[in-house]
This record gives sequence, C-alpha cells and structure tokens, in this order.
Amino acid sequence: MEMKRYTLGLDFGTESARSLLVDVQTGEVAEAVSMAYADGVIDSHLPGIATPLPPDFALQNPQDWLTTLEFTVRNALQKANIQPEQLIGIGIDFTASTILPARADGTPLCQAQRWRGHPDAWPKLWKHHAAQPQADRMIRVAEERRESWLKHYGGKISSEWLPAKALAMLEDAPEIYNESAIILEGADWVAWQLTGVLAHNACGAGYKGLWHKREGFPSREYLAALNPLFADLYEKLPGQVLPPGERLGGLNEEWARRLGLLEGTVISVPIIDAHSATLGAGVTRAGILFMIMGTSTCHMLMSEQEVFVRGISGVVEDGIARGLYGYEAGQAAVGDIFGWFVEHCVPSEYMKEAEARNLSIHDLLSEKASASLPGQSGLLALDWWNGNRTPLVDADLSGLFIGCTLTSKPEEMYRALIESTAFGTRWIIETFEIQGVPVNSIVAGGGLVKNNLLMQIYADITGREFTVSASPQVSALGAALLASVAAGSENGGYSNLQRAAACMVPKPVQTFQPNTQNKKTYDLLYNEYLRLGRYFSEDNHIMKTLAGLRKLS
Amino acid sequence: MEMKRYTLGLDFGTESARSLLVDVQTGEVAEAVSMAYADGVIDSHLPGIATPLPPDFALQNPQDWLTTLEFTVRNALQKANIQPEQLIGIGIDFTASTILPARADGTPLCQAQRWRGHPDAWPKLWKHHAAQPQADRMIRVAEERRESWLKHYGGKISSEWLPAKALAMLEDAPEIYNESAIILEGADWVAWQLTGVLAHNACGAGYKGLWHKREGFPSREYLAALNPLFADLYEKLPGQVLPPGERLGGLNEEWARRLGLLEGTVISVPIIDAHSATLGAGVTRAGILFMIMGTSTCHMLMSEQEVFVRGISGVVEDGIARGLYGYEAGQAAVGDIFGWFVEHCVPSEYMKEAEARNLSIHDLLSEKASASLPGQSGLLALDWWNGNRTPLVDADLSGLFIGCTLTSKPEEMYRALIESTAFGTRWIIETFEIQGVPVNSIVAGGGLVKNNLLMQIYADITGREFTVSASPQVSALGAALLASVAAGSENGGYSNLQRAAACMVPKPVQTFQPNTQNKKTYDLLYNEYLRLGRYFSEDNHIMKTLAGLRKLS
Repeated sequence: MEMKRYTLGLDFGTESARSLLVDVQTGEVAEAVSMAYADGVIDSHLPGIATPLPPDFALQNPQDWLTTLEFTVRNALQKANIQPEQLIGIGIDFTASTILPARADGTPLCQAQRWRGHPDAWPKLWKHHAAQPQADRMIRVAEERRESWLKHYGGKISSEWLPAKALAMLEDAPEIYNESAIILEGADWVAWQLTGVLAHNACGAGYKGLWHKREGFPSREYLAALNPLFADLYEKLPGQVLPPGERLGGLNEEWARRLGLLEGTVISVPIIDAHSATLGAGVTRAGILFMIMGTSTCHMLMSEQEVFVRGISGVVEDGIARGLYGYEAGQAAVGDIFGWFVEHCVPSEYMKEAEARNLSIHDLLSEKASASLPGQSGLLALDWWNGNRTPLVDADLSGLFIGCTLTSKPEEMYRALIESTAFGTRWIIETFEIQGVPVNSIVAGGGLVKNNLLMQIYADITGREFTVSASPQVSALGAALLASVAAGSENGGYSNLQRAAACMVPKPVQTFQPNTQNKKTYDLLYNEYLRLGRYFSEDNHIMKTLAGLRKLS
Repeated sequence: MEMKRYTLGLDFGTESARSLLVDVQTGEVAEAVSMAYADGVIDSHLPGIATPLPPDFALQNPQDWLTTLEFTVRNALQKANIQPEQLIGIGIDFTASTILPARADGTPLCQAQRWRGHPDAWPKLWKHHAAQPQADRMIRVAEERRESWLKHYGGKISSEWLPAKALAMLEDAPEIYNESAIILEGADWVAWQLTGVLAHNACGAGYKGLWHKREGFPSREYLAALNPLFADLYEKLPGQVLPPGERLGGLNEEWARRLGLLEGTVISVPIIDAHSATLGAGVTRAGILFMIMGTSTCHMLMSEQEVFVRGISGVVEDGIARGLYGYEAGQAAVGDIFGWFVEHCVPSEYMKEAEARNLSIHDLLSEKASASLPGQSGLLALDWWNGNRTPLVDADLSGLFIGCTLTSKPEEMYRALIESTAFGTRWIIETFEIQGVPVNSIVAGGGLVKNNLLMQIYADITGREFTVSASPQVSALGAALLASVAAGSENGGYSNLQRAAACMVPKPVQTFQPNTQNKKTYDLLYNEYLRLGRYFSEDNHIMKTLAGLRKLS
C-alpha cells in the first residue's frame, strides 16, 4: 500500500490559531488542533503595562503566533501519528491587514527592550481602526491627483490596510517608523520565520496593499504628496510579490527541529484567511459568492471580467484562483456584534436559564427569537458596530437601533442584530449585481453557519438559497489545498487548485431556502434599512461627530 | 394645648398607592404608608386568564385601588395614633387619563361576571396606547372642521386621553361601550366610592378630556363626525365639572366604617398626580417650571397669559392653581426607560457587583457612568421608548440608539439614556420659551431627583439651576394641601392654596448648578438630538412603519 500523504493548513485567526492535517488524496481530516493566543486581542493595555491604549487600537503579540504554531503543529502530527516524510507541504492563511514593524533580521520591534512599551511597535490587527484620518486623507489626495488605481478599490481606501496603518505610524510614532527596516503582513512574517525567505503575498499586497499585478504600487509622488517622509515606504516593504500557492521555500533547519519535521518541507506563499476559506469551501469558479461568516464576514466572488465596482474593497487578478479576477467585499463586524450583545446586554435570568438548560446563550437567544415573525418586534438596526466596510468603507460609522419600546426584549434586539447583518449582506450582493458582477449562487462557511435561525434569516432577506460548506475549517483547509499545489503533483500534490479542490473538499450537505412570505416583510424592512444607511452616510454626519467626540476624550 | 389637625393625601400611582398624613399647621409628615397593587400594570394578560392582551394594552384592577386605599389609610392613622376627629380632610391625586367603564351604580364593568374576561371592560392606564389610530383621526377631523379648541392642546390629541380611549372602546369593543352607563377617570371613580358624589374633576377634564372652562366640551357634531354612534359620549361622562380642592362631599357611612373615620369627613375634588405634585413642591406662582420626574416626567408651568403653545399638551385655567393658566407638558417615559434598561440590558456580572457592594443596579450604573465625560462614549439616544408626548404628541414614535460600537459599555448606554431624557426636557423648555411662556426657574421632584449624576446632567444639558423639592412625596403632599383648602379655615384648614403651601411645604435644601464646560459639549449633542428628532418625526416615517408591523403581528 502506498504511503499516505498529507498537507497541513495553518490558520491564524483573530483570537486563536489552528493546524489542520489533511489527507491529500481523500481530503479526510487526520487531525485538527486549535490554541488561543495567550494575549488575545490587545485593545485595553499592552501586556504587563497598565497605561490604557488609545481608542481604536487593536494589537496582537507575535510571540503568540509562534507559540500556537509550534504547539498545534507538533500536537497534530503526534496525535495523527504521521511521519515527517508524509507531510508534503504547509500552507498558511492569516488575518489581514495585520501588520508589524520589524528589524532587518526579522525581530519584531515590540520584542526589542527599548520599544516594547510603545503601542506602535506592536502588530496592528486588521480591526485596529486608529488610521481612519490617514485613510480619509489617502482617498482625498488620490482623488485630487486623479490616481487611476483608486477605482480598483471602489474609490475607497480602508483604515485597515497596510498603507494607511504605515502612514499613521509615520505620523503618530515617527521613531517607530524610522526604526523599522521592514513593515509587513503577519502572514509574511511567519512564513519568513519558517523559511528565511522574505516575500509579500500577492493576496495581501493586492487586496490590502494597493498593489496591482500589471501596474505595481502607487507612485512615490503620490506617497510624497501624502507626506514627504512617506515616499520611501516601498523600501520598507518585503520587495518581491508572489502569488499564494506558489512554493515560497523550504522549512529551515531551526523550525524543522522545533516542529519535528524534515528540513526543506515545502512552505507555500501565504494567503488572507477569508480568501483561503473560499478555496476550502470548494469555490473555484466565477459567479459563486462565498461568504465566510464569523466575527466579521468576508464576501468573495470571482469573475472573468475586471470591473471596477464602486464600494467593493478590491479586485485582484489571480487574487483567489489563477485566471479569474477575485472580488472582495466585507462586513466589519457580524459575530462580533452578537458577541458584544451577549457580553453587555443580556440579563442574568437569561444566563441562568441557558446554564440550567445547558445551552449557549446564543442558542437560547436564537431559540427565543425563533418564536417571533419578521417585523413583529418593530426593531431595526444598522449593523455598523465596527463601521461599514462594503459598500461605504468607513470605520467611523457606528451602530444604530431604532424602534425601541418599553416592551422590547433581549431576544428581539438579538434578532434585529442578526437581521441587520443580513440586510448588510443583501446590500453587498446588490452592489455587485447592479455594477455588472453577477451572483448566481451562494456558499457560506464559518462559525455562524451553525445557527439555523441566522441562516434562514439570511435566505429570507436575500431571497436566495444558501448552501453551507461542509468543512468546519474552511480557511485552514484552503491553506492545506494551496500547500498541495505548492508541493506539486510530482511530490504527491496537485498541479492546480481545481484538481486539489475536487479531491480534498467535502461535498456540501445543507441548504437554506427562502420563505416567500417572510421575504415580503423583509423587503419592506430592507427599504427602511437602505434609507437609513444612505441618510447616515450621505446626509447626516452625526456618526462622524460622535466618533470625533469619542476619540477626543 | 390646641388639638393637632391633619389632612391625608391619597396618591394613586402606576404601580402602587400611598397615604400621607400631614400636620396642617406645620406640614410635618405624621405618617406615610405605601402599598403596591397586587396586579400591578396589567399588560401581558388579564388576571387569571392566559390569553395574551393585544399590543399597547396597559390596564389596572380597580379592586387594587380600593384595597390599597383601605390598607394605607387605616395603617397610617393607626401608626400615627391619630383620632378620627383630628383628620379634617382627605385629598386624592391619581394618574390620568386612567379611565374605566362602569354601571350607573358605580360597578366597574370588569367586576361583572359577564365582562371580566374582556380586556376593554378593565380600567385603561394612562400609558395604554392602543387608541393611537383614534387619536390620529380625532386630530384630522378636528383640523378638517377647523375646530377652534384644537389649539388649546397644541394642535394634538393624545391617545392617552379619555375621548380617544372612549372612541377606541366604541369601535373595538362596542358591546362594552354600549353596556357602560358611565366612562370616567379612576380618580373620580374612587372619590365617588368614598362620597356617593359623581363629578368630573376639572384638572382631568381640562387636560385630558378636551374640556374648557368657558367653552365646555367639543360639539356633538364633532363627535358625530368621528363616528355617528359617538355623539352621545357626554351622556356617559359624570356631568358636573368641579375644580380640584373644592369640597366634593363627605365620607359616606360605609367608607367611614371601613377606614375608621368620621362620616362626613371632607373629601376634596381630585387632581391629576403630576398637577398635585406641583403644589406639593410649593410651586404656586407663574414662571416656575415644576418637573415631576419618575417613570415618566410631567412639566408644569403657570402663566398669567393664556397662550396656545404648539406641541404643549394643554393649557387649563385654574388647572393647577386658581387665577393662573396651567400648562402641562410631558415625557412619556423617563424612569421607565432606565427600568427597561436594567431589566433587559444589564449583564449578570454587573448584577453580582451591585449585590456584593450592596448597591442598587441604578446606583452602580450611575457610579460607573460618572467616570466618563459628556460625549466620551460617542453614544446618543432619542428618548422615545414610550413615544413622544411633548412637543410631538405621538405614541407611535420609538426609541433610538446611535453611535454603538463593539466597545460600548452598559454604563455608557445607561448614561446616553439619561442624557436623552435631559435633551427631551431641554426641547420642552425651548418649546415653551420660543412661544412666549417664560421659564424663570426650575423645581424638580419625584423619585429620580435622588440620582445626583442624573440631576447634574439635567443642569448641564439645560444650562439651568435645578432646585430639588424637599418633600419626598410631592403628589401626596399636594393632595393633602388641597384637602386643607377643601376643609377651609373655619375647620382648621386654609382659605387658599398659597397660604396652605406657605405653611405645609418644606423649604428646598438642594440645588444643582450647570457646568459650563459640559454644557458646551452637550450643546453640540443637543443639536444632533434635535436634528434626529425632527428627521424621524417629519421626514422619515420609519417609526410609524415599525409600529405598524409591531401591531400587525
């Protein structure tokens, strides 16, 4: 019998990392091991330092990435009892833009004694939003200079992206900017640690770094117009840009030892987690919208055309799968909103009931919310608790509840929040379609697909069938797929992604069909949602005023 | 030594009733006894009947009024060890419009076996809002017919008022309307029980019954235009209208026995609770705004002029004190909003902390909220959880939260709710002043004045000094004042309210001064509040749509 071969998908999320060990031939998962980051999301103060962080800061500790990497890989291999030679490749997916400043030798500045107390020396997580003023200015200057590349990004630049975060670093903490030899994505930093090879993954560069396959990066003149000292930004970037799934290099001696693997084991060029999930859900064709629904939701769609869609965060050639233009849209908070709600707004009697019935509080609220009909609560929300990414690309927008009465119940507020995120998704689908990128079907993955009420609401509100991806770990599986392609067919892997997906991705088993009656009520509410959304993004700038006051104090 | 004389103020509130026994000469409180209504506010189902009530229903049980009356009066007299002949009068104040249908002999229809299962046979509490469609129609028809009296009520008729509730009864439950010989205020029903004398108190009739001292009630033609069967409404009302503080009659034999008092003890004509509180706070002059701040807030203001103020619920000659025009404005929910919040939106860890530190949850939230500055949370609310009474008079408006983020904390939401109610008060003050009714100073009473953070926020937001009334039971004290005037100086009482107040009302001891720095930030937020308020009452009718959906299901 032939030796079984495996690839390993390493998935670095917001709160934790995981290793997924997959049989390359069958797609069977041999082992999956997760581990939470010891420092989690650093948003109140730096580890061991009492000083509160400025508002909108959200950091991570790079040591957490390496610790979880080592622990989960070793554990997965050991539990599955796999020999080093059976592992033909490792793929990496990561949140983005999660960026850090480093020395030329790769040392993160936050690990230098001198800088560890400085918040700007630490990796800034994707949802770090302090660079909003810089993002606003980058858009304004690009508009003034009529920069042609602005249309690639729907006319907007997000405060979450590397260039906005780097400009904020230069302006708010010039000592850190000057001290950093390299500013790079966390994904590329981890891959660099493993291989000794420094590269910028094309997915991160394309979607979050203003890079275009044929046009490259924006000009030095544009950067200088933002700030004369910013013109040298590209000298601080990793240099070469490589497409995900290409072989980045081999595992170096140090990490081979730490992981108990062979030196030279193939490491593929990393990919952003949401894009990886698209592949892990088996989506490799045009016209299928893939939604990865978790703390936030990313919407991935491929097309044979390069269309510049207003309000869509990015379109990148080969960004998800080779030969297709990959479009990315997103909702900046989804599960995070429900998490905020259960943490801050659920009374103790509900907690007691959930405990007594051995339910999660989310399950209890969903059960109670299932008892009511669309519209029955008279509540409507704008799902902007973490700003609006698509189509407005504005982190300073904020959440809104309307229709509150003295009889509004927690489960009704919870349901209104779920509905608001579904309205947000419908707005994104319509944004694509109106501008000529068709959405023929929808596949969903991520943690939220386990909530039946939520999935039914999404189907009812969009009026579309939702197919649920069968893999519970789509991002990690996508990374394992890329590793199998990077290893290549000559080493027991695959020559392309389509072949890899056909063998390694499990077939979906669950779909949600829209209910026509519910859709009618939701059409009415959606119109109200859109009207509010337009009013508070175009006509009334109260959310900007409130965000300004919040930051002032 | 002369025999001490006392009057008793009977205060019927939303959740409970109380008896306040007051020394007529000194104002010293001899005893105060409270008792909650056994059935409380009936808003989910009738006592002993599982069928849910329709939306917007809020009922009371008349048996609760009598039970609490008997218990608290007997208890107060006994504890204070007062002889029957020392009690020279009883005054009554009551929520309004809290109305009930009764037989000619005074039996409430809900106590008839045949009707007890019918929700419309029960007393409808002031905050029962199911008559909104009728109120809307009453305004429209009055406008069409150019009824001159509409201006007395700021151009609006509230769904809380007797005529709107009676019209809804006719149209939604004609069998109850036809069966009822009398439709009357709870206040007048209780006074009728005690004395055998049936009258309509001028305060209720004037503020909540479309009655005017010189012009009387609206014409039969107007009523017939609403509904031909409604033309006979006035035949169902008590007939004579008497001013509060006048002697209604003497305690009848049955109730003298039940209460252990002398037959013939003076009972004064009742008054609405908020109007009574004005007197109990010592406010008997023009230009002093009195706010009674509890579950809802009433704003009472007197003037020597009769001005028809747009958006002000009513102006009634002699409505509060003789010789002055009494203006009433209101916020339909204040403490009720904070109550809703702590019931539905406070996480268990806060409850545990409050318990461990032996604080009320309101005190804990206020303490935490005190730590932040105005605007710091970036949250703003519209305080319309129970609609807007002044200046919009619309029960279908609903509450709104804006500025929510993933870091919004419960104490920040709580503070935003307090601020929203203070913005609502500022809007009312400006509505008065812009239209020519000056507000020279402010006196506050009611349960909420104990909250220092809240009072400071009110001072900061309005930019005015707030004087806190020294009596903790202003409504009941006002009723005791009226009883002393009804008894008259010849029986040891007083010849007029001013003399009674000078002797019986304690001097205020606490004031809150506005902080200029806070006022500046709040001016900015108030402008945003006003803009939202105008938008959602004039330009965007989403709240009506949501209320419609809520009622549909």
